[in-house]
Amino acid sequence: MRKPSRERTASSSGAGGRRNRVRTEFFDHRSTRNPLELRVGGTLDRFTLAYEAYGRMNADRSNVILLFHAMTGSQHAAGFNPDVPGLDGRWTDEVQEGWWNGFIGPGRALDTREFCVLCVNYLGGCYGSTGPASVNPATGRRWGPAFPVLRMSDIIDSQMRLLDALGIRKLHAVVGASIGGFLCLLTATRHPQRVSRVIPIGTGVETSIYQRIINFEQITAIESDPHFRGGDYYDGPGPERGLALARRIAHKTFVSLEALRERARSEVVSHKPPHGWYEMNHPVESYMLHQGDKFVRRFDANTYLRILDAWQWFDLPSEAGAADFAGLFERCRNQEFLVFSIDSDLSFYPPEQARLVQLLKRAHVPVMWITVHSDKGHDSFLIEPKLFAPHLHQILSH
Amino acid sequence: MRKPSRERTASSSGAGGRRNRVRTEFFDHRSTRNPLELRVGGTLDRFTLAYEAYGRMNADRSNVILLFHAMTGSQHAAGFNPDVPGLDGRWTDEVQEGWWNGFIGPGRALDTREFCVLCVNYLGGCYGSTGPASVNPATGRRWGPAFPVLRMSDIIDSQMRLLDALGIRKLHAVVGASIGGFLCLLTATRHPQRVSRVIPIGTGVETSIYQRIINFEQITAIESDPHFRGGDYYDGPGPERGLALARRIAHKTFVSLEALRERARSEVVSHKPPHGWYEMNHPVESYMLHQGDKFVRRFDANTYLRILDAWQWFDLPSEAGAADFAGLFERCRNQEFLVFSIDSDLSFYPPEQARLVQLLKRAHVPVMWITVHSDKGHDSFLIEPKLFAPHLHQILSH
Repeated sequence: MRKPSRERTASSSGAGGRRNRVRTEFFDHRSTRNPLELRVGGTLDRFTLAYEAYGRMNADRSNVILLFHAMTGSQHAAGFNPDVPGLDGRWTDEVQEGWWNGFIGPGRALDTREFCVLCVNYLGGCYGSTGPASVNPATGRRWGPAFPVLRMSDIIDSQMRLLDALGIRKLHAVVGASIGGFLCLLTATRHPQRVSRVIPIGTGVETSIYQRIINFEQITAIESDPHFRGGDYYDGPGPERGLALARRIAHKTFVSLEALRERARSEVVSHKPPHGWYEMNHPVESYMLHQGDKFVRRFDANTYLRILDAWQWFDLPSEAGAADFAGLFERCRNQEFLVFSIDSDLSFYPPEQARLVQLLKRAHVPVMWITVHSDKGHDSFLIEPKLFAPHLHQILSH
Repeated sequence: MRKPSRERTASSSGAGGRRNRVRTEFFDHRSTRNPLELRVGGTLDRFTLAYEAYGRMNADRSNVILLFHAMTGSQHAAGFNPDVPGLDGRWTDEVQEGWWNGFIGPGRALDTREFCVLCVNYLGGCYGSTGPASVNPATGRRWGPAFPVLRMSDIIDSQMRLLDALGIRKLHAVVGASIGGFLCLLTATRHPQRVSRVIPIGTGVETSIYQRIINFEQITAIESDPHFRGGDYYDGPGPERGLALARRIAHKTFVSLEALRERARSEVVSHKPPHGWYEMNHPVESYMLHQGDKFVRRFDANTYLRILDAWQWFDLPSEAGAADFAGLFERCRNQEFLVFSIDSDLSFYPPEQARLVQLLKRAHVPVMWITVHSDKGHDSFLIEPKLFAPHLHQILSH
């Protein structure tokens, strides 16, 4: 196993300063003696995780914040990373700026003068971690549909291997938004001794009916694309139209409708039929089309499908090894929770966080619940650090 | 032109009575001298409209209620109709019962002892009216993509030709829900002298941003199906997967999420992958899949696309020939409006009806606005006649 370096720093770009360059590190797990046992069966004895770290780890490695990206995010949460090798062009301009830049850095909500923030591309991902687009060492060919079925708990367990390798026994905090919040809750409950503070943002304790329905629409969109070929498309054109449609189906839930209308205002409508007969007539159509087309350049359809699959099958109590929610959250009594809701969230609606908070209270887990008011929808967690920073700072710093 | 019969009756099936059989009539417009001028260009000198009528027309033909079906409905609103010829198997069991049975009949909200209720399949439709699946008399082949582009005003104008033929100068009322409500508002404003009472249910004055987005998703789903072939698919397999996905995308907005969960409860989940790799894990997925598959047996993809197109391009003031909404509704001062909202509606949200009511009030149009409280969502207008009947009865009977 390649030994990961245990300390890394990231300096602030500062006002007017140069871009703060960061780079992705790779953790290679290779052990036939101690393979990763997967939830639905099978093992992985070799896998790689792509990760980044910002801020210096302290001597006893007790100042680490593990941050989970959302579905189509990456390990690259902060600073500027011009390239990650081997990604078939997926490291586009769009992902070169860290997705949580406004939250991470000296003096920011996740203060890198105090903490080391660690972010890891999901196992199954397409930004450097082993996934369906990776070469299967056993065959020398890309995994494609043969890549094992993953569950959220497999993603967590793979990251625990990285923590072991870095010598991190207990995390100062776990933080995650959207399905990153699922991972945050699952870490806190599946590995309760390893977590002090738990900060789920705009998430829930289960896959909602609405999510199930639109996730399934997206799955069908991808699988129905004739270029998908059951996931075995790496030697030919990919299922770009299906993936673009899937992204559009999801995207509308990330942004409030008012924000969508606003964003679309500057779009020029081409009346040219994009796919066939229909001629577009409104900027929001061009905008959505553009969102889909932009996305397919930076993401792998199999990874997208695998994460949707893990989302559809997500079962928090069971994946944490508990019989039910009561038994699950009892394990968290020595932890401290900060739960965020976004009032305009159309992806994870505020009642879903209300349910989480109710379950935590019933289990006598210390919890603070904050609703931020925003007209940005679910995306607020990406773009409005000032709404979240004071409470993040408070819980992390005491 | 075949002369339509001017009187027809429909008796109630009564409690335990025999099924009230009805049949579809056909109105053939054939006139090169007086063709239907279409909004975006071109004319139709020959077209057929499929319609049904329930209740007896009075001597001066002043007791007619024109009812507009919603997007995938038909002319068959009441009674039992075992067959409509020439529909390539689309007249399935599912459509043989009238879609507004609970609302139409002796003593019901639209009382056929007093009124004659007329319902017409949209021009462009696939239940007997001329549409893309019809044979183009000029070529002897199906219209397919060559069928002219339609707007909502063309659908209205074609129905006015039928009223002319039936000798109906002024309608006692126009009634329509969903995009049937668009047609209802458009008739009232484009032909204000022909309408006394206007009853839009769960509708709005324009295509909302949310509707634009999900309509456009549906368009892409259909057009991306390799069997769609630009709409020229009648000689081979149709775009069934694309159309099924489109239906699923729409269906979730018709039913409240709680009702969906409830309806799905009895579904048996087959874990068999329906399209490829993904295995379903929840009854709501089977339920949605079933909704899509059932739908494609009874509907034509080109018709679906044409109606979506007219919806995307719908422009009420302009299609009625008005400069703006103020000028539009001024024409309605001699009419009387009854506007219904459904509190759980996820397709046409209650604020959309609030906007309509505000515009009517500003234009000094008599209007009553009623919100029904239901856990069924948009579909309430199809399945809960008791919520609507008293106010319908009141406005129609005075």
